[in-house]
Amino acid sequence: MPGLFITLEGGDGVGKSTQAQLLTEWLESRDLEVVRTREPGGTALGAEIRRLLLHGGYEIGAVDPRAEALLYAADRAQHIATVVRPALARGAVVVQDRYIDSSLAYQGAGRVLSVDDVRRVSEWAVDSLWPHLTVLLDLDAAKAVARRESRDGAQGETADRLESEAHEFHTAVRDGFLALAEAEPDRFLVVDAEQSAEKIQEKIRARVSPLLD
Amino acid sequence: MPGLFITLEGGDGVGKSTQAQLLTEWLESRDLEVVRTREPGGTALGAEIRRLLLHGGYEIGAVDPRAEALLYAADRAQHIATVVRPALARGAVVVQDRYIDSSLAYQGAGRVLSVDDVRRVSEWAVDSLWPHLTVLLDLDAAKAVARRESRDGAQGETADRLESEAHEFHTAVRDGFLALAEAEPDRFLVVDAEQSAEKIQEKIRARVSPLLD
Repeated sequence: MPGLFITLEGGDGVGKSTQAQLLTEWLESRDLEVVRTREPGGTALGAEIRRLLLHGGYEIGAVDPRAEALLYAADRAQHIATVVRPALARGAVVVQDRYIDSSLAYQGAGRVLSVDDVRRVSEWAVDSLWPHLTVLLDLDAAKAVARRESRDGAQGETADRLESEAHEFHTAVRDGFLALAEAEPDRFLVVDAEQSAEKIQEKIRARVSPLLD
Repeated sequence: MPGLFITLEGGDGVGKSTQAQLLTEWLESRDLEVVRTREPGGTALGAEIRRLLLHGGYEIGAVDPRAEALLYAADRAQHIATVVRPALARGAVVVQDRYIDSSLAYQGAGRVLSVDDVRRVSEWAVDSLWPHLTVLLDLDAAKAVARRESRDGAQGETADRLESEAHEFHTAVRDGFLALAEAEPDRFLVVDAEQSAEKIQEKIRARVSPLLD
């Protein structure tokens, strides 16, 4: 396929949206068609699936972990087949927030299902479509929490719960992402997300630039 | 698990519901707890998924074949985890219309996805729970069509469409079921569904009887 598939990964609060926006502006200034998208979501079917998972709890009872993983995989299959592949086929650059790496890092931290199994299901869902480049915005878990709080208006209760219960989880997610990047250095660009947004974007553009030729 | 898991398979119109009903009556007359269930369906999540797949067409656009298979697998995961496993754990007999074998036989006939892939996804969905016994009601495709027509009130138009377009498909489904049964003779009981309902039930009971001890 003639297009270019770029994903942005990292925990909440590391700056994925900002970087996706800056990258999109730069690519568009070069007269490229850019499709900016995200997972989960991006299709009408995906929106229905998310509605089931997020708001259906009191109607449908507890969702089995495998059923949940399969629903996310179905969302992903639909998104890749109907949004991403057609865009790549017509030569567009797809800039996507989160992809399979997020499933693997979060599943690994949650430890309910085998990461290898989730990878296998996800890979099948998308018929083995991997990105040309994955930008991992890496940030210490505590700093990402602080950034989220600042962004969300620093609600004391939320912050307390996150700090007390979830610090370990977010650290495990970060370690998961770093391990994925280490295993595939050619696909990944790891950027220290403590730097300024401009500095980070500069590094991303330097890596994307040769891929545009 | 102390319970007994029995599935009934075969194309539409071969008599699965009748046999499931007769088997349930017989088991209950022996003071056994019987959970009679079916796929797809049987859970609130499954009902929502079916609604998406069957009625959502005009709202959500065409569903990618992998997304569809993953949605059915999610339904199955939820059904097995929340209905079948708990029943088996308390020692019940589960009598179920259709299971993984149906997915494999129909997918094989449709030839869109690899049957091996669908088997792998389904097996993962249910954490490798296979039935103790699978009763395959085997019937020539043309006879099954005739039986469906008679049951549904012989609507000429439906019958014509089925006969002209789908005879080959139903023959392929039947062949798929027979190949599955041949590969696992210990799990399968193949019964000629041209016999009377009583004769068929007699053979099923003869095979189930020793499994109850």
